[in-house]
Amino acid sequence: MAMTDTAPPLDASDLVREETVGRVRRLVLIDEKRRNLLTSEMMAALDEALERAASDSDIRCVVIAAEGPAFCVGHDLKAMTAHYEDPDGGRAFFQGLFDQCSALMYGIARNPRPIIAEVHSVAAAAGCQLVAACDIAVAAESARFGTTGVTFGLFCSTPMVPLSRAVDRKDALEMLMTGDLISAGHADKIGLVNHVVPDDKLTEETMALAERIATKSPLVLQMGKEAYYAQIEKGLQDAYAHCSTVMVDNLMTRDGKEGLSAFVGKREPHWEGR
Amino acid sequence: MAMTDTAPPLDASDLVREETVGRVRRLVLIDEKRRNLLTSEMMAALDEALERAASDSDIRCVVIAAEGPAFCVGHDLKAMTAHYEDPDGGRAFFQGLFDQCSALMYGIARNPRPIIAEVHSVAAAAGCQLVAACDIAVAAESARFGTTGVTFGLFCSTPMVPLSRAVDRKDALEMLMTGDLISAGHADKIGLVNHVVPDDKLTEETMALAERIATKSPLVLQMGKEAYYAQIEKGLQDAYAHCSTVMVDNLMTRDGKEGLSAFVGKREPHWEGR
Amino acid sequence: MAMTDTAPPLDASDLVREETVGRVRRLVLIDEKRRNLLTSEMMAALDEALERAASDSDIRCVVIAAEGPAFCVGHDLKAMTAHYEDPDGGRAFFQGLFDQCSALMYGIARNPRPIIAEVHSVAAAAGCQLVAACDIAVAAESARFGTTGVTFGLFCSTPMVPLSRAVDRKDALEMLMTGDLISAGHADKIGLVNHVVPDDKLTEETMALAERIATKSPLVLQMGKEAYYAQIEKGLQDAYAHCSTVMVDNLMTRDGKEGLSAFVGKREPHWEGR
Repeated sequence: MAMTDTAPPLDASDLVREETVGRVRRLVLIDEKRRNLLTSEMMAALDEALERAASDSDIRCVVIAAEGPAFCVGHDLKAMTAHYEDPDGGRAFFQGLFDQCSALMYGIARNPRPIIAEVHSVAAAAGCQLVAACDIAVAAESARFGTTGVTFGLFCSTPMVPLSRAVDRKDALEMLMTGDLISAGHADKIGLVNHVVPDDKLTEETMALAERIATKSPLVLQMGKEAYYAQIEKGLQDAYAHCSTVMVDNLMTRDGKEGLSAFVGKREPHWEGR
Repeated sequence: MAMTDTAPPLDASDLVREETVGRVRRLVLIDEKRRNLLTSEMMAALDEALERAASDSDIRCVVIAAEGPAFCVGHDLKAMTAHYEDPDGGRAFFQGLFDQCSALMYGIARNPRPIIAEVHSVAAAAGCQLVAACDIAVAAESARFGTTGVTFGLFCSTPMVPLSRAVDRKDALEMLMTGDLISAGHADKIGLVNHVVPDDKLTEETMALAERIATKSPLVLQMGKEAYYAQIEKGLQDAYAHCSTVMVDNLMTRDGKEGLSAFVGKREPHWEGR
Repeated sequence: MAMTDTAPPLDASDLVREETVGRVRRLVLIDEKRRNLLTSEMMAALDEALERAASDSDIRCVVIAAEGPAFCVGHDLKAMTAHYEDPDGGRAFFQGLFDQCSALMYGIARNPRPIIAEVHSVAAAAGCQLVAACDIAVAAESARFGTTGVTFGLFCSTPMVPLSRAVDRKDALEMLMTGDLISAGHADKIGLVNHVVPDDKLTEETMALAERIATKSPLVLQMGKEAYYAQIEKGLQDAYAHCSTVMVDNLMTRDGKEGLSAFVGKREPHWEGR
């Protein structure tokens, strides 16, 4: 989190740059001056870009990266404090802001594409939440992560939703209660990121991972990701029942048939969708 | 997963060898030529062997091991593709196959005996699921693990049920979305296996662990394992209420009394059951 | 767990020493002779001390430490066995004992203060549960941890409630089924403790962590801890809805406003409560 004196940009393209590399969509946060603060405009721009990736049948995997001195430092605290002067003390504005933020983060789990965070520098507060909310995360060696809100009187309650599902209880609670920044190595140990790579290999390694996923059938990835988030909230028996049916549905799709046929015929599959 | 041209074996004893070492039952998958594919016959043979271990009061712990070039490479894809020619496109056959598989895997959690996977070489797709579904797993240094289905158009949706309960979210999602094989060391880091041992010590170390468990009361192990899987699906308060009662029930059993009496009397316990 | 021939102490102050260091409350188990057995008297003393910390507005963080040859070795088995002679075979006594124990442990999650375990020597059975139940844990290098009950016929069913929520499934099941003691390093690897420190730095390091937490607003810590344990039991969507509202409520508190104002004004916050 940080404060700023600059006026908000007028255009989403000043906030998020959308690149297409083969079948991978790269969404790059580029509000460098404000350290990629999750202003309402930034959240809208990122959400819309994610929706475009979801509805573009040529895209099979999404990377969320950032430029500038920070990956993302969370909400715009200075702008928020101004709303304490609202007639309702800011309650309506705050509720709208956090509902928007939660919809963005929850939308990452609901998005049909695999979404990978590519993290450099600092991911703090809702910026750390963004990393935790992604399906997969790759960190530069020098990256740091923290749920820093408690230090300025605002416990990272929404960031803890994906954080506490990504890492063990005691690790989550220590991060939340201290507000300390942790190293990329520690983030790797506790499960907040999948891999730590040299700083100058961050994009290369993340894109290699994304491209490996992008060789798969987008339909099959979508069915699998949806099933993952559905079954993880069920008891063991219900999860098996749910996923057995998903497995059958997967087998009945065109890509399921094509994949098995290619495997048995020892050839490359050609994905065509449902 | 792999394909085969050989006819299915006629007898369960060609698929699973049952050995009894003291109070440990070893179930060894021996369909080497087909890399221990989980054909319907193999699943039935393993399920029946597990049931025998459950109902044999001399057995206190079970090890699932394998022989040949792979621990287990999952379902028989070639046999499955043949069913696309069925009048219903294979749906009924597939549903039956995955219901059988889920019943086998869920049965491992329901089985009263502690069940340990002893894993060499490759555990892929439903073979990886078998490892994840066991209570405990020991891996040879050279072992590899993968939920490889996505590569041939069949997301490992049923394997992810136990996988996603054994390992952290991001680790599970990366395995599922890439289909990559991971090393034994990485499997240890993420919690998919408990220990990695030198290849030539795999059976020795696994059996030593099994024999240590087999010195315990089978009744007490059964009550504890059942309580584990019951409480893990409850909220914290309900879990405490459930387990407080299990604790009292345990204390009222003959083995509970014998264990405490032996402890207080500084002698070895003699387990006799309920 | 251990046995004893000494008569129970008459006074809670013989069992738990309460110290106040700045804004940190240290609760030190001092029943050295009985290795801090969780007798009914000890549990009552600890529970009352935790309640006092909860209702003392000067206290912002709690440390549970111990003196003597063990951190805590669980229940008093010898005293328990005497109750097999009760008219009901001990059932009512045992149920009361484990209800009391579960209320103590569950109370740690319900307590508004962050609670840190400072663990030396051995934490066994319900002693290991006490560590698992704390929000955060720091261990001395030589400390060991075990759910040892299975060895003497009493599966650690209540200890597994917090243990199985702190560590991965296979790690929890191995501890529970073998009863083996694990090292501090292994406890760190699996998530049972947050940090391992040199034996002679244990108190210093734990207190430094506690004091860092004690610089935060006690009101904000309370709201955050409560939200943590509430949201972890919900599905993803419900968790986000719950925590978005907590975030707004946090912003509307005096300490929320003060924290943001201090951050924006680049000064130290002065916490005053709701």
